Order: sequence, then structure tokens, then C-alpha cells
Amino acid sequence: MSFQEGDLVLLVTGERKYLKRLGRDFSLNLRDRLLKFEDVVGRKPGEVVKGFCLLEPTLEEVILLGFERKTQIVYPKDSFYIAFKLGLSVGKRLLEFGVGSGASTAVFSQLAGEVWAYEVREEFYRLARKNWERFGLCKNVRLENVDFSIVELEEGLFDAVFVDVKDPLPFLEKVWKVLKAGASFASILPTTNQVSSLIKSMEGLFCDVEVLEILHRPYKVNPDRLRPRDLMTAHTGYLVFARKSM
Amino acid sequence: MSFQEGDLVLLVTGERKYLKRLGRDFSLNLRDRLLKFEDVVGRKPGEVVKGFCLLEPTLEEVILLGFERKTQIVYPKDSFYIAFKLGLSVGKRLLEFGVGSGASTAVFSQLAGEVWAYEVREEFYRLARKNWERFGLCKNVRLENVDFSIVELEEGLFDAVFVDVKDPLPFLEKVWKVLKAGASFASILPTTNQVSSLIKSMEGLFCDVEVLEILHRPYKVNPDRLRPRDLMTAHTGYLVFARKSM
Amino acid sequence: MSFQEGDLVLLVTGERKYLKRLGRDFSLNLRDRLLKFEDVVGRKPGEVVKGFCLLEPTLEEVILLGFERKTQIVYPKDSFYIAFKLGLSVGKRLLEFGVGSGASTAVFSQLAGEVWAYEVREEFYRLARKNWERFGLCKNVRLENVDFSIVELEEGLFDAVFVDVKDPLPFLEKVWKVLKAGASFASILPTTNQVSSLIKSMEGLFCDVEVLEILHRPYKVNPDRLRPRDLMTAHTGYLVFARKSM
Amino acid sequence: MSFQEGDLVLLVTGERKYLKRLGRDFSLNLRDRLLKFEDVVGRKPGEVVKGFCLLEPTLEEVILLGFERKTQIVYPKDSFYIAFKLGLSVGKRLLEFGVGSGASTAVFSQLAGEVWAYEVREEFYRLARKNWERFGLCKNVRLENVDFSIVELEEGLFDAVFVDVKDPLPFLEKVWKVLKAGASFASILPTTNQVSSLIKSMEGLFCDVEVLEILHRPYKVNPDRLRPRDLMTAHTGYLVFARKSM
Repeated sequence: MSFQEGDLVLLVTGERKYLKRLGRDFSLNLRDRLLKFEDVVGRKPGEVVKGFCLLEPTLEEVILLGFERKTQIVYPKDSFYIAFKLGLSVGKRLLEFGVGSGASTAVFSQLAGEVWAYEVREEFYRLARKNWERFGLCKNVRLENVDFSIVELEEGLFDAVFVDVKDPLPFLEKVWKVLKAGASFASILPTTNQVSSLIKSMEGLFCDVEVLEILHRPYKVNPDRLRPRDLMTAHTGYLVFARKSM
Repeated sequence: MSFQEGDLVLLVTGERKYLKRLGRDFSLNLRDRLLKFEDVVGRKPGEVVKGFCLLEPTLEEVILLGFERKTQIVYPKDSFYIAFKLGLSVGKRLLEFGVGSGASTAVFSQLAGEVWAYEVREEFYRLARKNWERFGLCKNVRLENVDFSIVELEEGLFDAVFVDVKDPLPFLEKVWKVLKAGASFASILPTTNQVSSLIKSMEGLFCDVEVLEILHRPYKVNPDRLRPRDLMTAHTGYLVFARKSM
Repeated sequence: MSFQEGDLVLLVTGERKYLKRLGRDFSLNLRDRLLKFEDVVGRKPGEVVKGFCLLEPTLEEVILLGFERKTQIVYPKDSFYIAFKLGLSVGKRLLEFGVGSGASTAVFSQLAGEVWAYEVREEFYRLARKNWERFGLCKNVRLENVDFSIVELEEGLFDAVFVDVKDPLPFLEKVWKVLKAGASFASILPTTNQVSSLIKSMEGLFCDVEVLEILHRPYKVNPDRLRPRDLMTAHTGYLVFARKSM
Repeated sequence: MSFQEGDLVLLVTGERKYLKRLGRDFSLNLRDRLLKFEDVVGRKPGEVVKGFCLLEPTLEEVILLGFERKTQIVYPKDSFYIAFKLGLSVGKRLLEFGVGSGASTAVFSQLAGEVWAYEVREEFYRLARKNWERFGLCKNVRLENVDFSIVELEEGLFDAVFVDVKDPLPFLEKVWKVLKAGASFASILPTTNQVSSLIKSMEGLFCDVEVLEILHRPYKVNPDRLRPRDLMTAHTGYLVFARKSM
């Protein structure tokens, strides 16, 4: 494989990363270093040109650097864990609402057999579609621009659900109904007040409730002066997991 | 689906979880509560019997509660992230050595097309096989009981590699050769000294090197008294990620 | 200085620490190593006898290893920070209630000029007195066994206050009155619900409100295999700081 | 007390804090709000003027907002803990080198009887002096502009030592000599490599060695939406504590 016109290219230099589409008019200028189309086309991944390492982006980089966003996204550090925690695999059907910019769906769709996704705001519905199409993602996702509470769904349809809305409480009973027996539930919430409200409402409907936070602590990559970076992301959200109970 | 003889059952009560095979002689005794075969057989997932919620286990629970281990395993909190970070998907071929108890392979094989795995110690080779067979995992994994350094492999064969050995340094050059251009590298190391040594040796062979730790902070699930648990796992290992460079 | 009969001795071996009073009948038995009165008396601090390093304890060790406790104490990791954050110094008068086992008072009294302390439960009142007397602490503390809400105090008496009761809300207005203009407020609370309630009640009475957690992450002391310990304390309490406003 | 010309004033609005000397020409302009000398003079601490809460600064605020710095300082979150951990009190004599901007000395001098401090670089020596004089701190500190390794000191002179230099190794033996039996040692180091080197060199000279990190996690102060702030300081330094052994 070598980079051709139209390919996505990840350019890494030091701790900086850039994600670009390789068009004829491609150019990247960092201080004294100017990279143009001719510098990149025909190169192999891993080649270093003018101090930039040329790579194919991973899903994490596509989401963090390529996805357009109009609101807080579910970060890969959280969605990677949620995907496995939900027990997703080829034979499983996932329900997801709201979809937002489509970042978490892009992760879940890699592990799940199919995803049925609902987004009530047209603006986000269009944004998610656009993000997925630009990067060729989510072929196994059925996305609808509709309020989840009015969608007609038969009972016991889903193996798992991911809820990412401000207030999940009004949807809880319907979520419970459309899940299979023992199915997996996950949600992400920014505040402790929301967590308290949600887990209180889940009593009697769900069992095996877990609440946790995931913290990533990055290091400076210097073998002779190894140490954490000065700053880290201190909070993205509280993760709530559970299983449908009866 | 309802639980039948021979099925795996996860039993959850409060913060305790038990993973059992449902045989005729099944019994679980917690304080005053005795659960027997007759109490569980025929029940649906999510049913609560004598205070135990009956569930099908997820992969995380199979690994944490079901896998036999003779050494430190790669915990799901780390392997779930590594799997996505390595860019694994249906079309990708992963190289992994050493395999240990087979916990990380069981995760990676869910996302990757195929995994070629090598374990030099016969004891661990047998253990990994046994763990996978007991839980029906890793059908797309080729595992060999051999020292990776003597395996004959053509160059540019793998899309990604996961290295989990005490000292990765002697294997680095061979790893580099069998990876495709720009392929993904990951390793987990318990000490800072090992991280310093590894990233020093990677200079010139790999680019986009990242070092990070993942911390999970669990909460007590009480809506009126929400707070973190008293203790948390403070360390499993430092994760090192990189891409093959030229 | 050398250890004499009646002295406190801290005995350190590996990661274990013991705090003992050196009586004639002193003995410490760890596996094969038996330490008796004769082994310790007359030795200097820092001497190593049969693998035990003999030391005079610091305040932290006295609190953690010597204080009798009937409830959760305020840990030194928190109280050391609170003491300075409250702006305590020789000329300052601190108000504290409830006192519990007296652990936090023992810290604050080192920095403050004087401490007026109130503990409503007689059991804790006696316990705190006992702990302080055993270790010669808190000479500048006036402790009373009384409900703070009925104590008659003139307004503007205190430079700072530390509140450690389950529900600080009923006391807030009185606290406000007995503080000087701009005086410092601190409290420690175990749950997020309590923090929400407290900071809501403080609106209009206090300014410069801060909420934070302090996490200590200990390392294994091995120069060739440096790494964090496996477990850490994940939570003691949320610290709330503020200044009296008007 | 009310604010007079020449006083230090801390001005707090939302999450922002400003530390100013109240001169005739004082002015603070934030968006539409202009605060002048006349707005502040004669006011009491805790009064709110045009949305600014007027306060006397604590030591932490003086250090963080008032101290001029030409290098990384020891942050109060670390020095507050070190001060108590060193067992400082009125009867104790502390040795400290290098002094840098004088931030840690300003903390230690509050608890210790006296501090003997050494700073080899004249630039920092002058800076520390200036910071202390501006804020009336460190009256019990003897500061000299000299290389600690050439200072003549009798043996067993100090109860405790704090070392804050890039490479403490060349000074270790001298430090050991001038400490009393069982005296307390503390140091702060930014990298894991330095920690490994230091604790290796301490073997045989010191016992009860501890290594730890202190992390502060601040919250947004909103009772109905309680959550950690988005970012936190991930690293200031590794703390090393020990006791002189023989």
C-alpha cells in the first residue's frame, strides 16, 4: 500500500498529529516545514518525510481528529471499554440513542452485528451521517431521525443498549421492554446528580449495576526523563452499566 | 433462552459475583442462602432467585472469574483499549507473544480477523488452550508452543502486534520485520525501568510512540450516598503504543 | 537521644510499621525475629536491630498507628492540606466540631494558636482526650463535650472553622456568625449528595468555594523495578473550602 | 480589620482569582467591571463589590499568585504535605537546598523552629529573598548564597532536610552527616529515572523510604451539576521520604 490521491493521511511529528485528505492541493505548514501533495503521494505508511511520520489513521484518530462535532462526544477511552462491556459481537443487535456526532456508534458498530440508532435532532442526525460517510463507517447501522420514545419496536428485540441523552429517566421503561432478558445496559453521564437519579430509577428494573470512571494518564515519551505529562483530562463522564432484571 | 444443564451462569448479589457451570451437582451457599440446580435450571437471564440475579456472563466476567491463571493476566480494562488502539478489524492479522493465560488473546480475537499467537512455556500454552476451550473462545487463533525468536515468518505479514514478555528488547528487530509498513505495535510493562528501556530501543524503528496508564475508579452504587469505593487498583501496567516506521 | 523505658518506638521493616511503647515487657515477634526490651533500650534512632529500623514516630505515624478510633478518622493526607489551606498560624483561633477520635485536631493544633473544639457524643469526647494525652498532643486545644448548636459564643470570634459532622447544614448560620469577616471554612464529606447539599446552602453566606479530592499514589521502593503499588486508597472524602462572605 | 492602602487584597470572581497590592493607582478591569482604589479601601474582608469578593490571601494564594518565579516551584499541594511529613515543629531545625523561588521554604518556615537554607545560584537567592520580603515571610530562615557542598556544618545539626536539586546524589553523604540520628529526609523529583537513582543511592544510609505522588482533583462548584473539572494537573513531582539510618 502506498498513499494515493484521495487517501486519508495521518501526519505525526513529536506530540502533534494531523489528519488530512490527500488532495492535489494538500499542504501542511509547521514552522519551517512545508509538506505538499508531491511529498506524500506514493509514499508508504511509516515513512518519515521532513520530520512527519506518514500513517493510515486508526479509528481513534479518525474520531478525535476527523469527526466534526457540535457537542461533547463520547471519547474512545470510554467507548472502547463500553463496547466490550456491553458484550457486543457479530450475533448481537445494539440499540443506541441519542447518537450526537456519531462517535460512539462508529466504535460499537465494529464489534456488534447490527446497530439500530435513533437521534431526535435533525442537526445531529445529519452530522452523524456525514461523519460516517466521510470515513466509510457504520455500514451495519440503521439510523433514524426520530424521538426514541415514539418508535414502535417489538419487545425483547435488543441484546444491549447504549443511552446517551441528558435525562435517560423518561426512556427507562421503554428501554427495559425492548431489551432481551438479561440484556446489557450502558449510559454515560457528566454529573453526580444525574448518576444518583438514574441508578435510583433503575432499582427493580435492572441488576448488577456498576458505576465507574475511566482515567487515562499519558506520559512524556523520553526514556531518560520518563514522567507523566503536566496535564490530563480529569473528567469526561461517569459510566453506568447494568443488566435487565425481572 | 433459559438456563439448561451445562450452561455457564453468572450469579450476582450485591457487589459479589460468581461464575459457575450449571451441573446437576451445582450449589452455591452464601450465608443463609443455598442455591441448587433446581433453583436455576429453566430460569431466564435476569431472574432473581433468593437474592441472586442469574445472568449470562460477558467476556470480561469469563476472563476475570472463569479463567485459570498462573501469572498476572492482562486485565480487560487494558486489553479492551489495546484491541481498538491496535486498529483490529475483520480484515486484520494480529501477532501476539507471549500468551500467558490467554486472557488478552480472548479479547483481541473478537475484533481481529485472525491471530497468530506464540507461547514459549508449555505450561502456559496448555493453560491458554484450556481456558479458551472451556469457554468456546479464540476459534480464529493459531497458537504455537514455541519461542517467537525461532519461528520462521515472512516479512510484512502482520497488521498489528501485541508483545507481553518480560523483556521485549531481544525481539524488537524481528517484530519490526514481520510487521507491514505503518503497522501498529502495543506492549504492556509493569515497571518504569522497562518502559524507559523499551522506548529507547524503539527509536528509529517506530514512530508515534505513546505511553499511558489506564485507571478505573469504581463507585458504590447508592443513589443517596454516591461515592467512590474505598480502594481501587492503582496499577496493572504501563501501555506502550507505536507504529512501524522506516 | 537514645530510647529509654516509656518512650514511643516506631519499628520499620520492609513495608511494615509498628508503633509501640517501650515497657519492660515489650516484645515484637515477626516470623523468626523476636525483638525484646533489651534489644531496643539504649539504642539510637535509625539503628537497625534484627532487620527493624528503630525510629521516633512522626505525627502521621502516631495518628495512623497509635490513635484508637471508633469511626472513620480524617486522614493526614487530607488534614495536612486543610491545616495550611485554613491559613492557620500562631496568631489564629480555630473552631472545630465534631472532633471524633481527635485526629484532625492533633494536626491543626500544630499550626494554630489555639483551637476551640466541640464534640457532642461523650464516647468520642473521652476518646479524643485519651488519644491526645497518651501522645502529649493538643495542649492548646479547649475541648468541650457539648452540642455546638447550644454553645454560647460571641460573634466574629474565629479566624477559621473545620466542620466534620454528618450534616453540616443546621449549623451553617451559627458557624457564619462566629467567624470573623473573610474567615476560612473547611469541611470533609464522604458523598457527592452531601457536597451538593452543602454548597447549595453556602450560597450567599460564603464565597470562593472550592471542592476537591486528594489522592495519594504510593510506589514500591525498588530502584530497578519502580512501579506504583497494586492498590491505593481511592476515597476518603471530598474537601470543601470557602471564605465567609457578606 | 478593613482594607487600607498598601494592603494585599485577593479578589475572587467565579473561578478567577487576582492578588493585588492596594495602591492609590489600583485598578482591576474584567469585561465590563472596573474596580478602583476607592471601591476597595475601607471595605471588610468577605465584602462583595461589583461581583468581586475581597479577601486577605492565604499562604497558598500568596505563593501561587504573588511569588515571582523563574523555574518550576514546589506546589503547595506537595509542600503542605512535606512540611508535616518531615515532622517539623517549633523545636526543630530544618536544612533546605536548593531554594529556588523560595516557595517551599515559605511553607516549611511556618511549622519549623528555624530553617537553614542554601541556594547556589545568585539569581534564585535574590528572587527568594525578594519574594519573602514582599510578603513578610520566612523571618526564621537563614538563607545563604552558597553551594551546599562547601558549607561547613557540624555533624548531627538538623532534625530534617528537604533537598530540591536536579541531582541529589553528590550531596547525599554530606546530608547524612549533618542530620541527627533518625532525622527525616524529603526530596521532590520530576522523573522516574531520578527516583530510581536516588533510592538506589540511599540504600544503607536511610531506612523507611517511601515514594508517592499527590494528585488533586478539583470539582466544578455547581450543586445541581456536580462534576470534576475537565482538566487537572497530572504531575508535579515524585515525593521521596526517608529517615537517617545507621
